[in-house]
Amino acid sequence: MEIERKFLTKKIPFALEGFVCKQIVQSYISFQPTIRIRQSNDKYFLTVKGKGYMIREEFEIAISQQEYERLYMKIEGNEVRKRRYLIPLQSGYTAELDVYEGSLEGLFTTEVEFETMEDANGFVVPEWFGTDISYDRRYKNTSLALYGKPKDNN
Amino acid sequence: MEIERKFLTKKIPFALEGFVCKQIVQSYISFQPTIRIRQSNDKYFLTVKGKGYMIREEFEIAISQQEYERLYMKIEGNEVRKRRYLIPLQSGYTAELDVYEGSLEGLFTTEVEFETMEDANGFVVPEWFGTDISYDRRYKNTSLALYGKPKDNN
Repeated sequence: MEIERKFLTKKIPFALEGFVCKQIVQSYISFQPTIRIRQSNDKYFLTVKGKGYMIREEFEIAISQQEYERLYMKIEGNEVRKRRYLIPLQSGYTAELDVYEGSLEGLFTTEVEFETMEDANGFVVPEWFGTDISYDRRYKNTSLALYGKPKDNN
Repeated sequence: MEIERKFLTKKIPFALEGFVCKQIVQSYISFQPTIRIRQSNDKYFLTVKGKGYMIREEFEIAISQQEYERLYMKIEGNEVRKRRYLIPLQSGYTAELDVYEGSLEGLFTTEVEFETMEDANGFVVPEWFGTDISYDRRYKNTSLALYGKPKDNN
Protein backbone atom coordinates (compact mmCIF):
# COMPACT_ATOMS: atom_id res chain seq x y z
CA MET A 1 0.00 0.00 0.00
CA GLU A 2 1.34 3.39 -1.00
CA ILE A 3 -0.03 6.69 0.37
CA GLU A 4 1.46 9.73 -1.33
CA ARG A 5 0.85 13.42 -1.81
CA LYS A 6 2.27 15.15 -4.85
CA PHE A 7 2.89 18.82 -5.57
CA LEU A 8 3.74 20.92 -8.62
CA THR A 9 6.87 22.76 -7.58
CA LYS A 10 7.78 26.01 -9.37
CA LYS A 11 10.77 27.34 -7.49
CA ILE A 12 13.31 25.57 -5.33
CA PRO A 13 14.56 28.04 -2.70
CA PHE A 14 17.80 26.23 -1.92
CA ALA A 15 20.71 24.59 -3.71
CA LEU A 16 20.27 20.92 -4.62
CA GLU A 17 23.92 19.94 -4.39
CA GLY A 18 24.58 17.92 -1.29
CA PHE A 19 21.25 16.09 -1.25
CA VAL A 20 21.12 12.39 -2.08
CA CYS A 21 20.23 12.12 -5.78
CA LYS A 22 19.05 9.20 -7.90
CA GLN A 23 19.14 9.24 -11.68
CA ILE A 24 15.84 7.59 -12.65
CA VAL A 25 14.63 6.33 -16.01
CA GLN A 26 11.21 4.72 -16.02
CA SER A 27 9.04 3.27 -18.73
CA TYR A 28 5.80 1.38 -18.98
CA ILE A 29 5.06 -2.03 -20.44
CA SER A 30 1.41 -1.32 -19.73
CA PHE A 31 -0.38 1.81 -18.51
CA GLN A 32 -3.55 0.11 -17.29
CA PRO A 33 -2.83 -1.91 -15.28
CA THR A 34 0.49 -0.21 -14.56
CA ILE A 35 3.52 -2.40 -15.29
CA ARG A 36 6.58 -0.24 -14.88
CA ILE A 37 10.30 -0.82 -15.30
CA ARG A 38 12.69 1.57 -13.64
CA GLN A 39 16.41 2.17 -13.55
CA SER A 40 17.53 4.02 -10.42
CA ASN A 41 21.26 4.69 -10.59
CA ASP A 42 22.68 1.17 -11.14
CA LYS A 43 19.64 -0.72 -9.82
CA TYR A 44 16.68 -2.05 -11.78
CA PHE A 45 13.10 -2.69 -10.70
CA LEU A 46 9.84 -4.09 -11.97
CA THR A 47 6.70 -2.62 -10.40
CA VAL A 48 3.02 -3.46 -10.77
CA LYS A 49 0.44 -1.06 -9.41
CA GLY A 50 -3.28 -1.33 -8.80
CA LYS A 51 -5.69 1.52 -9.52
CA GLY A 52 -5.92 4.70 -7.43
CA TYR A 53 -4.61 8.16 -6.68
CA MET A 54 -3.29 8.77 -3.19
CA ILE A 55 -3.60 5.13 -2.11
CA ARG A 56 -2.71 2.24 -4.34
CA GLU A 57 -1.47 -1.28 -4.02
CA GLU A 58 2.03 -1.72 -5.31
CA PHE A 59 4.45 -4.60 -5.73
CA GLU A 60 8.07 -4.15 -6.64
CA ILE A 61 10.89 -6.60 -7.28
CA ALA A 62 14.53 -6.03 -8.10
CA ILE A 63 15.54 -7.28 -11.54
CA SER A 64 18.88 -7.54 -13.32
CA GLN A 65 20.08 -5.14 -15.97
CA GLN A 66 19.65 -7.91 -18.54
CA GLU A 67 16.05 -8.53 -17.46
CA TYR A 68 15.42 -4.79 -17.61
CA GLU A 69 16.77 -4.61 -21.13
CA ARG A 70 14.58 -7.51 -22.31
CA LEU A 71 11.49 -5.91 -20.77
CA TYR A 72 12.44 -2.55 -22.27
CA MET A 73 11.68 -4.02 -25.70
CA LYS A 74 8.00 -4.15 -24.71
CA ILE A 75 7.50 -0.60 -23.49
CA GLU A 76 4.73 1.76 -24.64
CA GLY A 77 4.91 5.54 -24.74
CA ASN A 78 8.03 7.52 -23.88
CA GLU A 79 10.47 6.90 -21.09
CA VAL A 80 10.40 9.38 -18.21
CA ARG A 81 13.83 10.63 -17.14
CA LYS A 82 14.37 12.55 -13.94
CA ARG A 83 16.79 13.26 -11.15
CA ARG A 84 15.20 12.53 -7.79
CA TYR A 85 16.54 14.47 -4.81
CA LEU A 86 15.80 13.19 -1.31
CA ILE A 87 15.23 16.21 0.93
CA PRO A 88 14.79 15.63 4.69
CA LEU A 89 12.12 17.88 6.18
CA GLN A 90 11.97 19.27 9.71
CA SER A 91 8.74 17.32 10.22
CA GLY A 92 10.72 14.10 9.91
CA TYR A 93 9.36 13.22 6.47
CA THR A 94 11.48 13.05 3.35
CA ALA A 95 10.46 15.05 0.30
CA GLU A 96 11.23 13.47 -3.07
CA LEU A 97 11.86 16.29 -5.50
CA ASP A 98 11.78 15.11 -9.11
CA VAL A 99 13.60 17.28 -11.64
CA TYR A 100 12.44 16.01 -15.02
CA GLU A 101 14.72 15.85 -18.03
CA GLY A 102 14.54 15.46 -21.79
CA SER A 103 11.15 16.38 -23.29
CA LEU A 104 9.83 16.99 -19.76
CA GLU A 105 12.56 19.50 -18.85
CA GLY A 106 11.28 22.40 -16.75
CA LEU A 107 8.85 20.24 -14.81
CA PHE A 108 9.39 19.76 -11.07
CA THR A 109 7.23 17.70 -8.73
CA THR A 110 7.60 16.98 -5.04
CA GLU A 111 6.19 13.92 -3.33
CA VAL A 112 5.92 12.76 0.26
CA GLU A 113 5.01 9.24 1.31
CA PHE A 114 2.92 8.52 4.41
CA GLU A 115 2.09 5.54 6.60
CA THR A 116 -1.58 6.43 7.11
CA MET A 117 -4.25 8.66 5.58
CA GLU A 118 -4.32 10.61 8.87
CA ASP A 119 -0.62 11.42 8.46
CA ALA A 120 -1.19 12.38 4.82
CA ASN A 121 -4.07 14.70 5.67
CA GLY A 122 -2.34 16.21 8.70
CA PHE A 123 0.89 16.99 6.86
CA VAL A 124 1.81 20.69 7.00
CA VAL A 125 2.93 21.51 3.47
CA PRO A 126 6.10 23.63 3.08
CA GLU A 127 5.34 26.64 0.89
CA TRP A 128 7.98 25.79 -1.72
CA PHE A 129 6.16 22.51 -2.51
CA GLY A 130 3.61 24.42 -4.65
CA THR A 131 0.12 23.34 -5.78
CA ASP A 132 -1.27 20.02 -4.57
CA ILE A 133 -1.64 17.77 -7.62
CA SER A 134 -2.24 14.49 -5.77
CA TYR A 135 -5.49 14.03 -7.68
CA ASP A 136 -4.44 15.58 -11.00
CA ARG A 137 -4.03 12.69 -13.40
CA ARG A 138 -2.06 14.78 -15.92
CA TYR A 139 0.96 14.72 -13.62
CA LYS A 140 0.96 11.01 -13.02
CA ASN A 141 4.12 9.52 -14.50
CA THR A 142 1.99 7.28 -16.72
CA SER A 143 0.36 10.41 -18.20
CA LEU A 144 3.76 12.08 -18.63
CA ALA A 145 5.01 8.99 -20.47
CA LEU A 146 1.92 8.92 -22.69
CA TYR A 147 1.15 12.61 -23.30
CA GLY A 148 4.25 14.56 -22.24
CA LYS A 149 4.30 17.76 -20.19
CA PRO A 150 0.85 19.19 -19.39
CA LYS A 151 0.05 22.34 -21.42
CA ASP A 152 -0.45 24.75 -18.50
CA ASN A 153 3.06 24.10 -17.23
CA ASN A 154 4.78 25.58 -20.30
CA MET B 1 4.26 -15.40 -0.16
CA GLU B 2 3.29 -18.67 -1.77
CA ILE B 3 4.31 -22.11 -0.40
CA GLU B 4 3.35 -24.96 -2.70
CA ARG B 5 4.12 -28.59 -3.35
CA LYS B 6 3.53 -30.03 -6.80
CA PHE B 7 3.17 -33.62 -7.99
CA LEU B 8 3.16 -35.40 -11.33
CA THR B 9 -0.11 -37.30 -11.32
CA LYS B 10 -0.48 -40.34 -13.57
CA LYS B 11 -3.84 -41.81 -12.68
CA ILE B 12 -6.87 -40.22 -11.07
CA PRO B 13 -8.73 -42.91 -9.11
CA PHE B 14 -12.09 -41.12 -9.03
CA ALA B 15 -14.47 -39.29 -11.34
CA LEU B 16 -13.84 -35.56 -11.76
CA GLU B 17 -17.44 -34.55 -12.41
CA GLY B 18 -18.88 -32.82 -9.40
CA PHE B 19 -15.71 -31.05 -8.33
CA VAL B 20 -15.41 -27.29 -8.77
CA CYS B 21 -13.59 -26.70 -12.06
CA LYS B 22 -11.96 -23.61 -13.52
CA GLN B 23 -11.06 -23.31 -17.19
CA ILE B 24 -7.65 -21.63 -17.11
CA VAL B 25 -5.62 -20.08 -19.92
CA GLN B 26 -2.34 -18.52 -18.90
CA SER B 27 0.45 -16.84 -20.80
CA TYR B 28 3.63 -14.98 -20.02
CA ILE B 29 4.67 -11.46 -20.91
CA SER B 30 8.02 -12.29 -19.36
CA PHE B 31 9.48 -15.52 -18.01
CA GLN B 32 12.20 -13.98 -15.89
CA PRO B 33 10.96 -12.16 -13.95
CA THR B 34 7.59 -13.86 -14.26
CA ILE B 35 4.83 -11.58 -15.54
CA ARG B 36 1.78 -13.75 -16.14
CA ILE B 37 -1.70 -13.07 -17.45
CA ARG B 38 -4.41 -15.58 -16.69
CA GLN B 39 -8.01 -16.13 -17.63
CA SER B 40 -9.89 -18.24 -15.08
CA ASN B 41 -13.45 -18.83 -16.26
CA ASP B 42 -14.72 -15.28 -16.84
CA LYS B 43 -12.14 -13.55 -14.60
CA TYR B 44 -8.79 -12.09 -15.61
CA PHE B 45 -5.62 -11.59 -13.58
CA LEU B 46 -2.15 -10.14 -13.83
CA THR B 47 0.49 -11.78 -11.65
CA VAL B 48 4.12 -10.96 -10.97
CA LYS B 49 6.30 -13.51 -9.22
CA GLY B 50 9.72 -13.34 -7.65
CA LYS B 51 12.26 -16.15 -7.98
CA GLY B 52 11.98 -19.50 -6.22
CA TYR B 53 10.54 -23.00 -6.15
CA MET B 54 8.39 -23.91 -3.17
CA ILE B 55 8.38 -20.39 -1.72
CA ARG B 56 8.06 -17.29 -3.82
CA GLU B 57 6.74 -13.80 -3.51
CA GLU B 58 3.68 -13.21 -5.62
CA PHE B 59 1.43 -10.25 -6.39
CA GLU B 60 -1.83 -10.58 -8.24
CA ILE B 61 -4.42 -8.05 -9.36
CA ALA B 62 -7.72 -8.50 -11.15
CA ILE B 63 -7.81 -6.92 -14.59
CA SER B 64 -10.58 -6.46 -17.14
CA GLN B 65 -11.03 -8.60 -20.24
CA GLN B 66 -9.97 -5.59 -22.34
CA GLU B 67 -6.78 -5.12 -20.30
CA TYR B 68 -6.10 -8.85 -20.64
CA GLU B 69 -6.48 -8.68 -24.40
CA ARG B 70 -4.12 -5.72 -24.68
CA LEU B 71 -1.50 -7.49 -22.56
CA TYR B 72 -1.99 -10.69 -24.56
CA MET B 73 -0.39 -8.92 -27.53
CA LYS B 74 2.91 -8.92 -25.60
CA ILE B 75 3.13 -12.58 -24.62
CA GLU B 76 6.12 -14.84 -25.24
CA GLY B 77 6.03 -18.60 -25.73
CA ASN B 78 2.81 -20.62 -25.88
CA GLU B 79 -0.28 -20.22 -23.78
CA VAL B 80 -0.93 -22.96 -21.21
CA ARG B 81 -4.50 -24.26 -21.18
CA LYS B 82 -5.82 -26.46 -18.42
CA ARG B 83 -8.88 -27.39 -16.43
CA ARG B 84 -8.21 -26.98 -12.73
CA TYR B 85 -10.25 -29.17 -10.39
CA LEU B 86 -10.47 -28.22 -6.71
CA ILE B 87 -10.45 -31.44 -4.69
CA PRO B 88 -11.01 -31.21 -0.92
CA LEU B 89 -8.78 -33.62 1.02
CA GLN B 90 -9.55 -35.33 4.32
CA SER B 91 -6.57 -33.48 5.84
CA GLY B 92 -8.44 -30.21 5.31
CA TYR B 93 -6.24 -29.05 2.43
CA THR B 94 -7.50 -28.57 -1.10
CA ALA B 95 -5.70 -30.29 -3.95
CA GLU B 96 -5.59 -28.41 -7.23
CA LEU B 97 -5.54 -30.98 -10.01
CA ASP B 98 -4.55 -29.48 -13.35
CA VAL B 99 -5.63 -31.37 -16.45
CA TYR B 100 -3.64 -29.82 -19.27
CA GLU B 101 -5.07 -29.36 -22.75
CA GLY B 102 -3.92 -28.63 -26.30
CA SER B 103 -0.26 -29.45 -26.92
CA LEU B 104 0.11 -30.39 -23.24
CA GLU B 105 -2.73 -32.94 -23.32
CA GLY B 106 -2.00 -36.04 -21.24
CA LEU B 107 -0.18 -34.10 -18.54
CA PHE B 108 -1.68 -33.94 -15.04
CA THR B 109 -0.22 -32.14 -12.05
CA THR B 110 -1.55 -31.76 -8.51
CA GLU B 111 -0.65 -28.89 -6.23
CA VAL B 112 -1.33 -28.07 -2.60
CA GLU B 113 -0.77 -24.67 -1.05
CA PHE B 114 0.44 -24.25 2.55
CA GLU B 115 0.65 -21.49 5.14
CA THR B 116 4.06 -22.49 6.50
CA MET B 117 7.06 -24.61 5.51
CA GLU B 118 6.30 -26.87 8.53
CA ASP B 119 2.85 -27.57 7.10
CA ALA B 120 4.34 -28.21 3.66
CA ASN B 121 6.94 -30.63 4.98
CA GLY B 122 4.51 -32.38 7.32
CA PHE B 123 1.87 -32.95 4.66
CA VAL B 124 0.98 -36.64 4.20
CA VAL B 125 0.83 -37.10 0.44
CA PRO B 126 -2.11 -39.13 -0.94
CA GLU B 127 -0.80 -41.94 -3.14
CA TRP B 128 -2.66 -40.82 -6.26
CA PHE B 129 -0.74 -37.51 -6.24
CA GLY B 130 2.30 -39.26 -7.82
CA THR B 131 5.95 -38.12 -7.88
CA ASP B 132 6.94 -34.94 -6.06
CA ILE B 133 8.06 -32.42 -8.70
CA SER B 134 8.12 -29.33 -6.46
CA TYR B 135 11.75 -28.74 -7.41
CA ASP B 136 11.61 -29.96 -11.02
CA ARG B 137 11.79 -26.87 -13.16
CA ARG B 138 10.57 -28.70 -16.28
CA TYR B 139 7.06 -28.80 -14.86
CA LYS B 140 6.86 -25.16 -13.92
CA ASN B 141 4.19 -23.51 -16.04
CA THR B 142 6.79 -21.11 -17.40
CA SER B 143 8.78 -24.12 -18.71
CA LEU B 144 5.63 -25.69 -20.14
CA ALA B 145 4.86 -22.43 -21.96
CA LEU B 146 8.43 -22.20 -23.29
CA TYR B 147 9.38 -25.82 -24.00
CA GLY B 148 6.13 -27.83 -23.96
CA LYS B 149 5.59 -31.20 -22.30
CA PRO B 150 8.75 -32.73 -20.79
CA LYS B 151 10.06 -35.68 -22.82
CA ASP B 152 9.85 -38.37 -20.13
CA ASN B 153 6.14 -37.81 -19.75
CA ASN B 154 5.26 -38.97 -23.27
